Amino acid sequence: MMGPLLLVFNLVHMNLTQTINLIKKYLLGLQLKICDILEQEDGRASFLSDPWEHLEGGGGITKTIANGQVIEKAGINFSYVLGPALPAAATLKRPELTACPFHALGTSVVVHPYNPYAPTAHMNVRFVAVERPHHPPLWWFGGGFDLTPYYGFIEDCIHWHKTAKAACLPFGEGVYRQFKQWCDEYFYLPHRKEPRGIGGLFFDDLNAWGFDGSFAFMQSIGDHFMQAYQPILAKRKALPFGEKERQFQCYRRGRYVEFNLLYDRGTLFGVQSKGRTESILMSLPPKVAWEYNWRPVEGSKEEQLYKVFLIKKDWLLENVH
Amino acid sequence: MMGPLLLVFNLVHMNLTQTINLIKKYLLGLQLKICDILEQEDGRASFLSDPWEHLEGGGGITKTIANGQVIEKAGINFSYVLGPALPAAATLKRPELTACPFHALGTSVVVHPYNPYAPTAHMNVRFVAVERPHHPPLWWFGGGFDLTPYYGFIEDCIHWHKTAKAACLPFGEGVYRQFKQWCDEYFYLPHRKEPRGIGGLFFDDLNAWGFDGSFAFMQSIGDHFMQAYQPILAKRKALPFGEKERQFQCYRRGRYVEFNLLYDRGTLFGVQSKGRTESILMSLPPKVAWEYNWRPVEGSKEEQLYKVFLIKKDWLLENVH
Repeated sequence: MMGPLLLVFNLVHMNLTQTINLIKKYLLGLQLKICDILEQEDGRASFLSDPWEHLEGGGGITKTIANGQVIEKAGINFSYVLGPALPAAATLKRPELTACPFHALGTSVVVHPYNPYAPTAHMNVRFVAVERPHHPPLWWFGGGFDLTPYYGFIEDCIHWHKTAKAACLPFGEGVYRQFKQWCDEYFYLPHRKEPRGIGGLFFDDLNAWGFDGSFAFMQSIGDHFMQAYQPILAKRKALPFGEKERQFQCYRRGRYVEFNLLYDRGTLFGVQSKGRTESILMSLPPKVAWEYNWRPVEGSKEEQLYKVFLIKKDWLLENVH
Repeated sequence: MMGPLLLVFNLVHMNLTQTINLIKKYLLGLQLKICDILEQEDGRASFLSDPWEHLEGGGGITKTIANGQVIEKAGINFSYVLGPALPAAATLKRPELTACPFHALGTSVVVHPYNPYAPTAHMNVRFVAVERPHHPPLWWFGGGFDLTPYYGFIEDCIHWHKTAKAACLPFGEGVYRQFKQWCDEYFYLPHRKEPRGIGGLFFDDLNAWGFDGSFAFMQSIGDHFMQAYQPILAKRKALPFGEKERQFQCYRRGRYVEFNLLYDRGTLFGVQSKGRTESILMSLPPKVAWEYNWRPVEGSKEEQLYKVFLIKKDWLLENVH
């Protein structure tokens, strides 16, 4: 969607190492900020920090909460992976890069709240640079955020998408629409004919705005994520719920697992590049259920999720209010 | 492993339709037999039968138990899928067949008992025939069975593998060893560096024994499955267990999900060929848990699973007794 990858490294006064350090500083700071806010919202749990090294170079810091008051499971992972050759998941569209060493760094977040009325949220921002013989490195940014409710609230969806739009606005009029559509296309389960949730933003291969512009956009996405999620989590985390809602949440979480293991590029990239399994799969929900051929009761709150929320729509049109 | 696919249809007096009907009859009978035995072992539940049609032709019968006395979830699926073109998962090694119409029929079984001391069992037998222009159809059989314990019992593993060996013996001295090894290789999670369970048999691309020999072998696998599983289920289904064992079972079931969605050919074939999702994913366990970086306590029963059972070994050697 961003056109052919023709741009090369355009910061002649910076080398790759300096560039990576600059991005790393932002990504680590973002990780800390998100952890702080989530700890405040939880009110009891604090993140455990797990630094690790990658066999082939690089490493990361995985921060997790398990069994909090509000957050059943959350993982905020910073990773910097150096690899001798890009894995298949990353070179499908770029076969000429198959044998090139690469640098991939990113921060990713998945939050699974305990309360079924509070949605699961996901955010990822990343930078990839590929070293090529006799050429400057090829690089791009990617990322986005998306929301997966179990019981939907229209006002939450509007707030989520308004914040997504605000993150994009400084970068052009059509940017939100373009990356919102890409998100709808990406977070889709063809075998279920269902979107994963109510979407948000997704972008990849971004270098068309030059290094400064592309990096600034990535930061805008990172910085707006908690502005989008925190108010929703705060509003829904203490709503009363029962066993039925909990069961539906566990059942719907199965779709999350199916998407991540069958389709998600980041997960497949991680598994194929022999990444750190526990950090890659920290996105998987804590408790999940599968039930053969389950269907929601007609007219139920559960059916509403499918009919009102799990459909492609423009959440910022006047008539959805 | 079976050598190049040089054999073509060798029953000159039978056409493809007759052959498929013959195999279908066996597969449907096998489904009924297995359901009968599992209902007896459960003592309360009975299978619900769900016939379905495939959009592009063919269809199947999915039989399921949910929340039985002994069986928390079981699915026995017969399916016959006709497709206009083999999907990617089936043509990786046979690129020349990509655009050919195919017939795939099989019976597959997954049993998830409630009791964590009773292992999960899986069996699949299948036949694939591919129509080629100006050539007779290319065909092969595949299948096997494998066992996934949560708490292992050496005597159960020996019985399982003895029965597997008995199923193979009429077909040659080295057959068990060959297909046991293939099973170890196939049911392996590289990202965990773990086998899925204690193995059994796996075979694919089988036509080297001619149609009669290959079909007879597939029937032997199908017929021996319950001889292997029933005594184990009967022995373990009523052992007392607590919350800790149940939690470990749910945690380990996560590996089952990871294998099926990341690696299993049947699952990926089904998803890619736009098969019936509920029948393909009926293999997924009813209740599953993921916990970040969980490790068993040293010297615990849970650690024993990893140390004694989840390793490649020859279960029929004298010294494992």
